[in-house]
Amino acid sequence: MGVVVPLEERPGGTDAGLAPLLKLVAPAMERVNAFILSRTGSEVVMIPEVANHLISSGGKRLRPMLTLATSALCGYSGDGDVKLAAAVEFMHTATLLHDDVVDGSEMRRGKLAARMLWGNEASVLVGDFLLGQAFKMMVEVGSLEALRILSEAAAVIAEGEVMQLAAAKNTATTEDEYLAVVRGKTAELFAAACEVGPVIAGRPRAEQAAARSYGMNLGIAFQLVDDALDYGGREAKLGKKVGDDFREGKITLPVVLAYRRGSAEERLFWKRTLEDGDAQDADLAEAIRLLGKHGAIEDTLARARHYGAMARDALALFEDRSEARALLDVIGFVTARAH
Amino acid sequence: MGVVVPLEERPGGTDAGLAPLLKLVAPAMERVNAFILSRTGSEVVMIPEVANHLISSGGKRLRPMLTLATSALCGYSGDGDVKLAAAVEFMHTATLLHDDVVDGSEMRRGKLAARMLWGNEASVLVGDFLLGQAFKMMVEVGSLEALRILSEAAAVIAEGEVMQLAAAKNTATTEDEYLAVVRGKTAELFAAACEVGPVIAGRPRAEQAAARSYGMNLGIAFQLVDDALDYGGREAKLGKKVGDDFREGKITLPVVLAYRRGSAEERLFWKRTLEDGDAQDADLAEAIRLLGKHGAIEDTLARARHYGAMARDALALFEDRSEARALLDVIGFVTARAH
Repeated sequence: MGVVVPLEERPGGTDAGLAPLLKLVAPAMERVNAFILSRTGSEVVMIPEVANHLISSGGKRLRPMLTLATSALCGYSGDGDVKLAAAVEFMHTATLLHDDVVDGSEMRRGKLAARMLWGNEASVLVGDFLLGQAFKMMVEVGSLEALRILSEAAAVIAEGEVMQLAAAKNTATTEDEYLAVVRGKTAELFAAACEVGPVIAGRPRAEQAAARSYGMNLGIAFQLVDDALDYGGREAKLGKKVGDDFREGKITLPVVLAYRRGSAEERLFWKRTLEDGDAQDADLAEAIRLLGKHGAIEDTLARARHYGAMARDALALFEDRSEARALLDVIGFVTARAH
Repeated sequence: MGVVVPLEERPGGTDAGLAPLLKLVAPAMERVNAFILSRTGSEVVMIPEVANHLISSGGKRLRPMLTLATSALCGYSGDGDVKLAAAVEFMHTATLLHDDVVDGSEMRRGKLAARMLWGNEASVLVGDFLLGQAFKMMVEVGSLEALRILSEAAAVIAEGEVMQLAAAKNTATTEDEYLAVVRGKTAELFAAACEVGPVIAGRPRAEQAAARSYGMNLGIAFQLVDDALDYGGREAKLGKKVGDDFREGKITLPVVLAYRRGSAEERLFWKRTLEDGDAQDADLAEAIRLLGKHGAIEDTLARARHYGAMARDALALFEDRSEARALLDVIGFVTARAH
């Protein structure tokens, strides 16, 4: 069941910020990719088919690269970082499979979502399989502290998704409530991916906390930029359609801001389209107009830069180490995606 | 979010075989129940609601009791057994939540399935949450070997479910292929639940293997009796409707046997009703008639007794210990459910 796993490299342009990270982790990342392929195997042919459809679809593998980079930053020299990085990517892949079922999404990374090809059933179950495989990999590394961090992350991620499900139909969601969703569904895995590096390297608590804080704030910035891109990115770049969040009735930060800043009439528009699910094709243009009127996209990006700044300061503890530079550049990459 | 968790005790009747086990584990099981309740909590209110709907619905909690019993059998005296037992029940609950989504089931344990009340989305995500919580509990116990066994089980269970998904529409499934599904989707968790007892008690490999073998064969017997009951049990006892497997197009052992023993015309009947999904209400009666004609139910139960006998022999290693008696009686309980 050999499958080519492209590690997306787009030199120049807005992705230049990722180049130092790619360079830093390239040799280890090759081992991660090989390890990932070796663990999607199963005699049940549907499992590698579904798993590899998503795994080989050209995600940037930012999360596993963060595990490798924070391990390198902390001078780790064993091979546990490769297995934990693969486990992080499997957890992420499992989440995507389940998310697409929950959201009824048709596309993922510019391809048909797995559920469109193999059905919701297979997507749920292959996600479960990958989660089981992820824990097996972690057990092989043998660090109970890393296991604790990643199993906590698994529970928190699911909690964030349920929170989003409950908030999905409430346009009156506050910015704080929405941030709690983002911390759970996105930032927690970034945080855990970064935290396990210093943990397996046996570094002091302060470094673990700093790496976690970097990951958490980077993850929040990442999600907010994603939210902004959903209303303004080019489709080829997003790998999904502009307005997907809108069509799925998702309340994201741009909407939270525009709703709070809007007139009574505008609030009725958001309620009709997002709460009541009565969005027509023409409504997306109106939504984008309202977001523009209230500066909601710009301010979402400004918020993202705020979390980027927090991530930057968290790294100050490591600033004398050369690996820290690559992690700093990732912040630039994440917040610059929008331009 | 306090919820009463009934530990089903039905003295006398066919459940008498469970009495010695219930007595053996009663004090520890109270702690398991309290621990379970303490870990379904979340500020996201939908999580305890969905989780407790199923957790408090009166399952027998056979799997966690097996963990407690094999721990006691091996002289374990810590409190890791309680946490592992709770983790096993959470894994089981997560599986049921996902199964009902995959199968489109409407009922579970005589109540509406969670997905009918909160939707497929919440069922998928709360299942993920419980799986994350299960791993957190295991990590607290600190046994890497128990973690290895249970994470392996998580992957194998999902594999078994995918296998069933693929086999669901194939009436030509062989008995061996079907057994591979049963080992994965049901027996693996029984096996893991039993194996972790001697593992945390630090007992030799031979005892771990014996406990695992007992659990594996007991689990197979359990599933085969379930398959037979689906075509003949009373609804109150099953907590689901007679013929659910038939209506869902599931190929179970009774069908595997009847198909192989049937005429060409009968095979067309099974193909139409199960493969093509064209089952009318009247077809269930015809299915039951064909199963009876070929002795498929009786022989499914005979097969179950065969695995029960294997489970019994696996216990021989422990037969001088009083706790082994309770585990032997469980075999009788499982295989006698059908009468």
